[in-house]
Amino acid sequence: MRALLKERPGPGMSLREVPVPEIGPTDVLIRVRRVGICGTDGHIWDWDKWAQGRLHPPVVVGHEFMGTVAAAGGAVRGVSVGERVSAEGHVVDGTCLLCRTGQANLCERVQVIGVDRDGCFADFIVMPEGNVWRLDPSVPDNWAAVFDPLGNAVHTVMTADVSTKSVVITGVGSIGLMAIPVARAAGAAKVIAIDVNPHKLELARQLGADEVFDSRDPSTRERVYALTNGDGADVLLEMSGNGAALDLGLSMVRNGGRAALLGLPSDAVNIKLAEHIIFKGLTVFGIFGRKMFETWYQMQSLVTTRRIDLTPIITHVLPLEQFEEAFAMLKAGSAVKIVMDVSGELA
Amino acid sequence: MRALLKERPGPGMSLREVPVPEIGPTDVLIRVRRVGICGTDGHIWDWDKWAQGRLHPPVVVGHEFMGTVAAAGGAVRGVSVGERVSAEGHVVDGTCLLCRTGQANLCERVQVIGVDRDGCFADFIVMPEGNVWRLDPSVPDNWAAVFDPLGNAVHTVMTADVSTKSVVITGVGSIGLMAIPVARAAGAAKVIAIDVNPHKLELARQLGADEVFDSRDPSTRERVYALTNGDGADVLLEMSGNGAALDLGLSMVRNGGRAALLGLPSDAVNIKLAEHIIFKGLTVFGIFGRKMFETWYQMQSLVTTRRIDLTPIITHVLPLEQFEEAFAMLKAGSAVKIVMDVSGELA
Amino acid sequence: MRALLKERPGPGMSLREVPVPEIGPTDVLIRVRRVGICGTDGHIWDWDKWAQGRLHPPVVVGHEFMGTVAAAGGAVRGVSVGERVSAEGHVVDGTCLLCRTGQANLCERVQVIGVDRDGCFADFIVMPEGNVWRLDPSVPDNWAAVFDPLGNAVHTVMTADVSTKSVVITGVGSIGLMAIPVARAAGAAKVIAIDVNPHKLELARQLGADEVFDSRDPSTRERVYALTNGDGADVLLEMSGNGAALDLGLSMVRNGGRAALLGLPSDAVNIKLAEHIIFKGLTVFGIFGRKMFETWYQMQSLVTTRRIDLTPIITHVLPLEQFEEAFAMLKAGSAVKIVMDVSGELA
Amino acid sequence: MRALLKERPGPGMSLREVPVPEIGPTDVLIRVRRVGICGTDGHIWDWDKWAQGRLHPPVVVGHEFMGTVAAAGGAVRGVSVGERVSAEGHVVDGTCLLCRTGQANLCERVQVIGVDRDGCFADFIVMPEGNVWRLDPSVPDNWAAVFDPLGNAVHTVMTADVSTKSVVITGVGSIGLMAIPVARAAGAAKVIAIDVNPHKLELARQLGADEVFDSRDPSTRERVYALTNGDGADVLLEMSGNGAALDLGLSMVRNGGRAALLGLPSDAVNIKLAEHIIFKGLTVFGIFGRKMFETWYQMQSLVTTRRIDLTPIITHVLPLEQFEEAFAMLKAGSAVKIVMDVSGELA
Repeated sequence: MRALLKERPGPGMSLREVPVPEIGPTDVLIRVRRVGICGTDGHIWDWDKWAQGRLHPPVVVGHEFMGTVAAAGGAVRGVSVGERVSAEGHVVDGTCLLCRTGQANLCERVQVIGVDRDGCFADFIVMPEGNVWRLDPSVPDNWAAVFDPLGNAVHTVMTADVSTKSVVITGVGSIGLMAIPVARAAGAAKVIAIDVNPHKLELARQLGADEVFDSRDPSTRERVYALTNGDGADVLLEMSGNGAALDLGLSMVRNGGRAALLGLPSDAVNIKLAEHIIFKGLTVFGIFGRKMFETWYQMQSLVTTRRIDLTPIITHVLPLEQFEEAFAMLKAGSAVKIVMDVSGELA
Repeated sequence: MRALLKERPGPGMSLREVPVPEIGPTDVLIRVRRVGICGTDGHIWDWDKWAQGRLHPPVVVGHEFMGTVAAAGGAVRGVSVGERVSAEGHVVDGTCLLCRTGQANLCERVQVIGVDRDGCFADFIVMPEGNVWRLDPSVPDNWAAVFDPLGNAVHTVMTADVSTKSVVITGVGSIGLMAIPVARAAGAAKVIAIDVNPHKLELARQLGADEVFDSRDPSTRERVYALTNGDGADVLLEMSGNGAALDLGLSMVRNGGRAALLGLPSDAVNIKLAEHIIFKGLTVFGIFGRKMFETWYQMQSLVTTRRIDLTPIITHVLPLEQFEEAFAMLKAGSAVKIVMDVSGELA
Repeated sequence: MRALLKERPGPGMSLREVPVPEIGPTDVLIRVRRVGICGTDGHIWDWDKWAQGRLHPPVVVGHEFMGTVAAAGGAVRGVSVGERVSAEGHVVDGTCLLCRTGQANLCERVQVIGVDRDGCFADFIVMPEGNVWRLDPSVPDNWAAVFDPLGNAVHTVMTADVSTKSVVITGVGSIGLMAIPVARAAGAAKVIAIDVNPHKLELARQLGADEVFDSRDPSTRERVYALTNGDGADVLLEMSGNGAALDLGLSMVRNGGRAALLGLPSDAVNIKLAEHIIFKGLTVFGIFGRKMFETWYQMQSLVTTRRIDLTPIITHVLPLEQFEEAFAMLKAGSAVKIVMDVSGELA
Repeated sequence: MRALLKERPGPGMSLREVPVPEIGPTDVLIRVRRVGICGTDGHIWDWDKWAQGRLHPPVVVGHEFMGTVAAAGGAVRGVSVGERVSAEGHVVDGTCLLCRTGQANLCERVQVIGVDRDGCFADFIVMPEGNVWRLDPSVPDNWAAVFDPLGNAVHTVMTADVSTKSVVITGVGSIGLMAIPVARAAGAAKVIAIDVNPHKLELARQLGADEVFDSRDPSTRERVYALTNGDGADVLLEMSGNGAALDLGLSMVRNGGRAALLGLPSDAVNIKLAEHIIFKGLTVFGIFGRKMFETWYQMQSLVTTRRIDLTPIITHVLPLEQFEEAFAMLKAGSAVKIVMDVSGELA
């Protein structure tokens, strides 16, 4: 089969022929149809410090996908050959404290596909049955291919509990953008998007943001307070991983408010803990992955009822063969979310 | 009447004769009986940077106290002359978003007695009726005098939700020490106290800590993991306000755990946000003041049922006239909690 | 001034001239502009068993209203003459456990205007300052007049936590109808309305219900399961106060679901506790009044952002003088929500 | 092997020789050491209406046990032969909404051992690996044998959130009795036990109940209010399944309080919904089984730290061969909790 590989340490990826993987008794073999490219895949392409410390090439890259079941192990009961599926990319041990108490997304021994084990940028992928998510027929292929990052957005929004609340989102990359319609659908009364990229802020507005601001504009904080009755925003969703954006975001949250942090700073961050968190009595949530599988049911609900529309976020759909072009566009910032077709349908 | 005053900018305090304050229609005049000295009072004595930026002398110092009602304004209905009372020291506006939604401790326009308005180190103090707390006869005077810091400890513990959990407390000054019996009484399964002061760690053990560690001992983190089945502690209560202690404390919390932060760092703090909070899916609570008045009901419950005993923490009781000695002992670290008698009973 | 009075025990009400009430130091006198008629007012008109046991005539009726501040007591600080206001109709003692712990709507000594003390069907009403709610200029008078029942709907929906959930509403009188756009705005993925009245079900659909069913149709339960993937609905909002509707509603909730009960049965109700609540692990919320004032902030948010539209629910606006016609229409079921104009603007 | 069988419809059970069961790849074979007898087993013995409708004889009875691992299937990774274990008796499908969202105890297709499939009153039992709980060496065999009902008590108490609260327990059979030390350990400030059986009330007091009352004493309600400052109890734990006890219990809960219902009424129950639940703004939790496996971690924490002591509740330990005597004692009410030894150690 074809597979997009990180073959060896160093930048880039290679499209190679590799054997179709074998399945164990509790596994499912999935013929991949569409995949999404994530910022993490960009770090792997670039072979940055994080990638160097975490990956052990050769490894098939990619963790966002959908396809159809091609084969199932002998002990698989809940999934059948031919079914259309996506899958949770965090393969967990199932036996630790976290897995046994409803927090499997925080499993102490998680293995992420496309990072710690072979991923989905290939004709086939093997997943444990417990990770597979059966798709409703009404979900478009391209939406199903990006359930992984959509799940990040949904988990962040739902943890922050936004119904009737004013919400500031710092950082509107693809997940931050997804968080806009999700927050609206989840009941947010006012969504304010903050970034430095005018194109993404324009897209944010199209996706339903009530107001958009450039974080470098010195009046931004004051204007957010003006929009929130002088109290500050009820909720911050931090999606940038940038220390300055976090500081700005925390400064905008009202006393007693909530902040959900998804963006990953690459280094330690300087935080005015007394001023921004303690005196204000803030509640701060670290967000990782997606709830397994509460978030998936929430996504299914949002998508099948069309409470959200992902179409404007998926700016490009390309055949797998054009992966180099796709990664180049993401690096250049000329695309938001790129879906690649693995099925050959677009070739 | 006598009052311990911060008379003018600069170090020290002065015991002076001042007029008895007047009460408005919704106020209560309280004859002060016993008062507690807080670390904040030490900052005011020293006239540190925080005190210079916040206080406007002359002001009567002190915010921890109990006494008896001496007079009540015409509109006061719920409190009578002669009743034994303590009081919440945060005077709030009652009209802001926070006050109207059950978070008055985070009022945007709070005035703290002994800081922003005249306090309790005096023969009399005026309080709004809404701040007064009527004391059960079974509560000893000295305990009632320290309901303010006890409330900090109770609010922190109850927010963190410790029932059947393993709890690490970083920093066992007087509030950290109070948190030990409170956490035990609230159901904590294991309480681990961490500090650098061997005398306070010894007192921590007497108060019910299952284990005590010196934060400078390089094996401390490893030993906490060993005590918590290799998972890490369920809950961190940060009571030190020290950046290194916070970093150590966060490193000990398990994935999916909780951290309640009460200690106030004087400067911004460097936090490994990705490693310690986001990847772990931590929930972090900023804690300020005490819930008005949920925490007071909880304190009343803990104290009247004798689920907690504050006696070991109140190491000294001195007459008000010996205030210089009292502040000197606190600075020297030779006392934990000092109660001063204002009634003359001990003179 | 004019006032609609329950003058003496027995059916009916009388429009009479009475003195303008006097205000105390912490009170506000409000010139009433628009009022809403509630089902409770119908019980008072009819002088049913509940009314006989609760009211002590003569009393001015009415608890839903808006108007402008005509005068303020000497201790009033947060409200000014001329301001446009509505008010919370539950006058609470402010000193009980409930009032002091953020649950004032459950005050042990609540006095309801128009029931336990003089109400708003009059040219003027006196309210304690703490009950007054200042209105945003964008809120239409007629909407502001029905903030009391809207608050019931919002408190019920927000307690049940409906984001991304499927919601069944049993009973679509005016509050049940309000709950439909509120649930949609708060993020519900699917709203199913159940009643016996085809006109109200038709209005339910106009207001955003995804499906409407007649509770007497024997296939209703089965169809709700079909709409909810065979699991049952996530959430029940019981707005009818009818035992059979409650039984049907509980039978439709999925294992682990939630039920919020607002409708008041006049007698004890027979409940299959093991089958419908215990085996299913349901959480059931009794709902009374509105959170003071969290619900009011939520209403303000929903209304000022136009996330909800109350216009279709307010089917009639009549001058106060036509009160007999108004009550007759409500009894006949030919109106849903009637607002009466007290200002003379419509006369 | 020996097995205590419900051989055919009708009263009684029979000790028979049956084949040792076979294990699948994900199963564990456990050599049973000690078992507990539950009230449910009594219903099965009596062959009451519930048993007639649910069981399909022949079936091995019993669902409370501990033992050692005798063999493990090929795909079992987390449990080893020779390990000392107990197990969750609810065998769940792992694929339904409930199982995938942290509420497996409410699985739509649960199979209970000793009821829907072969149970533990036998020399061996087969359990799926996912149900097995590895025991800490410090847990006594007899305590480990009753983790199933202890889990009911812990799940009830922890759901009700009792820290610093006053708690009424209606019904002190073995689970109600277990709830007393559990509530104390979880932080309850005051525990009040109510029953009709003076021996059990005496045992309740020994186990830590602050007050005990006979539910038939007409002053009971008034005395509970006197003990709770006139407000009523914060929390009700209903353990009796008796309608009158539920009515009494609900009447004692304060406005805004919580009620957790574990006892299973055999028929529908008449509830004063308006008076006892809606006007009071109560939250009512239906409780079924134990959280899988949050409750097990909580039990482990309570038991290994000796925060609770189960010894007084286990009134008798008998060899399996004396099962007839054991069932007779339970029926006569002359025993509270009986553990049977299957290992032969006591024979």
